[in-house]
Amino acid sequence: MQPDKSNIKMQPFETYLLRTAGISIDEVMLLSSELKRVSFLKGKLLLNKGAVCKHSFFVEKGLLRSYMLDESGKEHVIQFAPENWFIVDRSSVYFNDASESYIEAIEDTEVVLIGEDFICKANETSPDFRRFNDKLLHNHIRHMQKRINLLLGATAEVRYLSFIEMYPDLLLRVPQWMIASYLGITPESLSRVRKELAHKNFKPS
Amino acid sequence: MQPDKSNIKMQPFETYLLRTAGISIDEVMLLSSELKRVSFLKGKLLLNKGAVCKHSFFVEKGLLRSYMLDESGKEHVIQFAPENWFIVDRSSVYFNDASESYIEAIEDTEVVLIGEDFICKANETSPDFRRFNDKLLHNHIRHMQKRINLLLGATAEVRYLSFIEMYPDLLLRVPQWMIASYLGITPESLSRVRKELAHKNFKPS
Repeated sequence: MQPDKSNIKMQPFETYLLRTAGISIDEVMLLSSELKRVSFLKGKLLLNKGAVCKHSFFVEKGLLRSYMLDESGKEHVIQFAPENWFIVDRSSVYFNDASESYIEAIEDTEVVLIGEDFICKANETSPDFRRFNDKLLHNHIRHMQKRINLLLGATAEVRYLSFIEMYPDLLLRVPQWMIASYLGITPESLSRVRKELAHKNFKPS
Repeated sequence: MQPDKSNIKMQPFETYLLRTAGISIDEVMLLSSELKRVSFLKGKLLLNKGAVCKHSFFVEKGLLRSYMLDESGKEHVIQFAPENWFIVDRSSVYFNDASESYIEAIEDTEVVLIGEDFICKANETSPDFRRFNDKLLHNHIRHMQKRINLLLGATAEVRYLSFIEMYPDLLLRVPQWMIASYLGITPESLSRVRKELAHKNFKPS
């Protein structure tokens, strides 16, 4: 008799694999035992500049950001990662480079660590996993290309609207200066954009 | 008797594969017959906004650039590709998306077209090709991440010095306004940076 799987309590990453990677429930259950989960308190660093990044982090609960410091010591936010996002310094993982950026918990956060060992196991377990991983990589590239285009050629308002579209639930979870830093604009410009949008009766959905 | 390979005249892409991809000379010769080469006159578009990008272009001679137009119609240079560089809209190739950018010949240019059919054939022919292709992808990510970091947090001077390091032979081949556009600064800022560097006796090597 087949075991009844309808009552299995899935964790967010398993649900994500099932819904997004096209991996069967049996394969997900096999992989599940290989996963490592870690919790980080708000303010904790998951990756330090100069260290080699060994994992992708999948956020199950909470919020992370990656950032870099410029020559004058000013912070610049590279990415936010709320629930169901991955965050990683891919160059550091792949080339074994010292990371140029930091990854920090903005809230108390629970993550799944996706390391080389898990990826090998997943590739063995499911023929769909390699395709899924390749798609993740290309999604990352698409995301970065969009970011370069916005930084090169978009007004502060367009950058802000694109931020809201990408991270619809972050407006109340992230301080304004961090959003401005991500957008590559001053907090004053962000404040002006928000006032102008309010004036136009714009409401983030 | 083994054929004498010492007199084989290699084209630049074959030489590149041999030196960079760790592929044997026999495998390179097998793949060579699969390659498609095309020439483009200066000013010609290899990729138009709205079209789906079907190939990576490897430059054997000449110079390409990719660029986008912002809402006001202003051009922003995304990448330059002189000899031995690849250029491609990877999101468009992978996701079959309409491209948001253009690829244009800045000089009369000869390219090798690297399409899906060639990549499949190369993966079959050489076990090293998949690893090589994966490394190219991660190099692309490293390059984009560096660009985002520079756009977010670097002064005009640091951006310019990084440009010279990455493209040492382009200073005399590319008009100043295009370099400024790539750097995300005004031509006036670029002119100021160049004067300040000349004052410090800086000479590009």
